[in-house]
Parts: sequence; structure tokens; C-alpha cells
Amino acid sequence: MNRRDFNIALGAATALAALSTKTSAQAPNREDGPSYAMLVHPKMIMQDLVGPMTVFNLTFGTNHLVGKTTEAVITDLGIPVTPNQTYATCPRDVDALFVPGGLAGTIAMLQDEETLEFLRDVGSSAQFVTSVCTGSLLLGAAGLLKYKRATSHWYTQNLLSMFGAIPTEGRVVEDGNVITGGGVTAGIDFGFTLAAKLRGEDWARRVMLTLEYAPEPPFQGGTPALAGPEITNTVLQRRGPVLEEARQAARVAASKL
Amino acid sequence: MNRRDFNIALGAATALAALSTKTSAQAPNREDGPSYAMLVHPKMIMQDLVGPMTVFNLTFGTNHLVGKTTEAVITDLGIPVTPNQTYATCPRDVDALFVPGGLAGTIAMLQDEETLEFLRDVGSSAQFVTSVCTGSLLLGAAGLLKYKRATSHWYTQNLLSMFGAIPTEGRVVEDGNVITGGGVTAGIDFGFTLAAKLRGEDWARRVMLTLEYAPEPPFQGGTPALAGPEITNTVLQRRGPVLEEARQAARVAASKL
Repeated sequence: MNRRDFNIALGAATALAALSTKTSAQAPNREDGPSYAMLVHPKMIMQDLVGPMTVFNLTFGTNHLVGKTTEAVITDLGIPVTPNQTYATCPRDVDALFVPGGLAGTIAMLQDEETLEFLRDVGSSAQFVTSVCTGSLLLGAAGLLKYKRATSHWYTQNLLSMFGAIPTEGRVVEDGNVITGGGVTAGIDFGFTLAAKLRGEDWARRVMLTLEYAPEPPFQGGTPALAGPEITNTVLQRRGPVLEEARQAARVAASKL
Repeated sequence: MNRRDFNIALGAATALAALSTKTSAQAPNREDGPSYAMLVHPKMIMQDLVGPMTVFNLTFGTNHLVGKTTEAVITDLGIPVTPNQTYATCPRDVDALFVPGGLAGTIAMLQDEETLEFLRDVGSSAQFVTSVCTGSLLLGAAGLLKYKRATSHWYTQNLLSMFGAIPTEGRVVEDGNVITGGGVTAGIDFGFTLAAKLRGEDWARRVMLTLEYAPEPPFQGGTPALAGPEITNTVLQRRGPVLEEARQAARVAASKL
């Protein structure tokens, strides 16, 4: 990437203003920081993007929000996100390619050859290839997970084997330069894992303290084991049709690999 | 509130589409669900809003994003958020008033009488009065925290006493109908606490499983005690000037109570 050629990073100025209005003179130079190419797709889960991006933003890097076009996409919350790069303009040699999830959006993108080609292209030159939630299905469909241990949202993890990946238990799973996170909120744990690799653990711990990341769920239930069979079956039942759609779309995508 | 009179809830349709495309017939009616009035202010921390709102959204309620005007505000990430209500149009009898944080934005709002008047007004009729991060300073300045145990981001918690509140350690602090969360990521823990009150713990646990909320920070450091004095002092030093601004703004606001 020609680092002097990128658009002004989305959020650079406002992050400084919001978090340290009077200390910008001490702030590191974003042009020297890590660069992130984050896939933006319709119906994505906003938290999947915002959790990791909030951490990335405090590594003082460059955030590329990459869409098929620069048209705004609508997220699960109804809040639109507007890409600042397209597949054509996004730099290839970023520090991390990152793919957020959202089941409906992932299913649509699994069938979109242009998106898979973009992921294949950036994924072959990025330092790290990463995802959260159902985003790993797209990495798989792009051929980036062959023989790699990887995870996904708990209810789509088993689909990864269709792409030659090794479905692996874990909140954040690392295999070489591939780092995948579990469902939705795992994105924050993933974000800190990557931040420590790109900026060192001391830096990441300062960000952790700034974001007061010392989670205390008020009750347990974030995994099938913690939630128990009754709640798990209710969630699976409600997601049944869309999970079947995901399986079909993954099968078709895998047949093209 | 005339519940039949509200605008179509932002996100209702897209949440259904994103999370359960084929099960909308089984989905609960949003008009019967909880209603949330969420303050939207310039320079707010996106995660402060998105964490709780992602949980609220899955309680199938009505999300009012309330701004001084309906003009989009820019968040720390550079991603704009457009209010769907103004102080004038926001229903008063919501189930929860919620104020996200972000230090620079909070400081500006502490000096904005129209915002404080709005919070005082909704806060007096809402079932729950809630905040995350520095948002509690605004609740305090609106006179809603008198004699109440409350928390804030760790580095602004001590300022709450200026407003007659009782600064209290805790990731999520409850006192009667007032629920306040700690810094940024505490919003997710807060969101589940409130969801369980409004929809019951079984519902909240289904949401928790859907969002796979079983956090595993890759290293420790989310509180001053966990981070240790060196990292804590670095963060405090960098935030020094803006924390002093916050103290001054809080003092002026408190003098008007």
C-alpha cells in the first residue's frame, strides 16, 4: 500500500477529539500505525464491527471500511454504515483483513463472487486474516481457511469444515496468521488479541483500561453449555430456517473452491 | 406515550431480517415490547451506544435515538448516527432513559441546559433511568442521581459526588430505578441487567446465547487494579487535561442544581 495515498482515515480526527482533546500533540501518528481493511456488508451485525473497530481505533491506525460500493449499508440496528473504500480502491497490503458477521448478510455474500474474489485478493497479502461471528464462513468460501483451525458463531462453527477448515472450540482461535472469533461479542476479545500483536501488550492494556474491559456478565448463558439445552434448543429452533439457508449457501460456495 | 403514534422503530425490520429472516411470524410484536429513549450526542463513543442497543434490540422493543435535532452526530469511530426523535418529539413514558458516554461529548452536554432539561423531564417519568460510562455525569447534572448510589467510567466516578450521588464501585450499580454502568464495555453487562428486568431472565439468557456473551479477555487490565499503577498513571496523564475540563464543567453544572 502507498500509505501516503490513502484517504484521511475515517475516525482519526474525531477519535482524538473525543478521547483526548488536548493531547493530540502526544498522540502517535496514524500513518505509522496498523491498517485495517474491514468488510462492510448489508445486514451485518453492528456490534460485530464496532467492538473490534473501537479497539483498532485506539491502536491509532488506519480504518478502511470496505464496501462493494460506497453506498451506505443498513445494519441490524438500523444504523447505516458508509464504506470509505470499495473493493477496487482498498489497499492490498493492510495489516489486517477483518470480516464481521451477521447471518443474513453472510448468506448473501457467500453467493457473491466479487466479494469472495476481493477477500481472496486482500487475504493473500494482508499480514493477518481475521473474522468475527459468521464472517469466517466468508473467509472459508474465499479459500483462506484450508487446513486452518478456525471458529465462528457457535451455531455455524460446524459449517467451516466444508471449506477445508478445522472447526475449533475457542473464543478466539489462532492458526498462523489467521485469527477468528466466536459470535458477536467475541469481537472485543478478538480485537484485544490482534491489538497486542500489532502494538504490543502494554499498548493493548492501556486500551483495555481506557475501555474498562473487565466484563462481568450479570448471569451466565453465553455458550450452549452455559445456557443449557432448553435455551439452546429454543435459539436453534428459531434460527432453524436461516441456518439451513446458510448450510445450503456454504455448500454451493464450497463446491466452487 | 401514545404507543400507536410512534415512528416505525429504527431497526425493527432490519433486525428481523438480519437475525431470523424466515421466523418473523413467530417474532414478538415490537409495539408490546419495552421502549428505550437513548440520548445521541456529538462525539459519543459508538460502543457505549451499540453494546446496550444490540441487547435492547433483541428485547423486541422500540428504540428511540434522541438528539437535540435530527441532524446526524459523529461518533468516536467517525461513523455518524442519525437521531429518529428530538427532545420535543421523544415520548416521555418510556421504559428506560439511557445516556451513553464519551468524555468530550459529555463535557459539552454538561453545559447544555436544553439537554439537561430533557433528561430531567424524561427521567422523571421513565421506568428506569440509566447510563453507561461518563453518561452518568449528565444524569447527575440533571438532578437525577441525588442520594443515589451510582458509577461512571473509573476516571470520572469521583465527580458524581458533586451532584449529590454516592459514587459506588461496581461494573453495574443499581439503586431503585437508577442503573448506571462503568466505562464503555460495561454497557453490555448493563444491557443484560436491564433486559432481564424488562423481559425476564430466560429471555435475556436467550439473547446472551445469541450474542455469544461469554467474554474471555486475552489478558487482564480493564480496571486500575488489574492494570497496575504504571499503565493507570499513563492513561490518567494522557487524559489529564480533558479530565480537568470535565471537573470544571461538572462543578459549574452542580452549582446550578
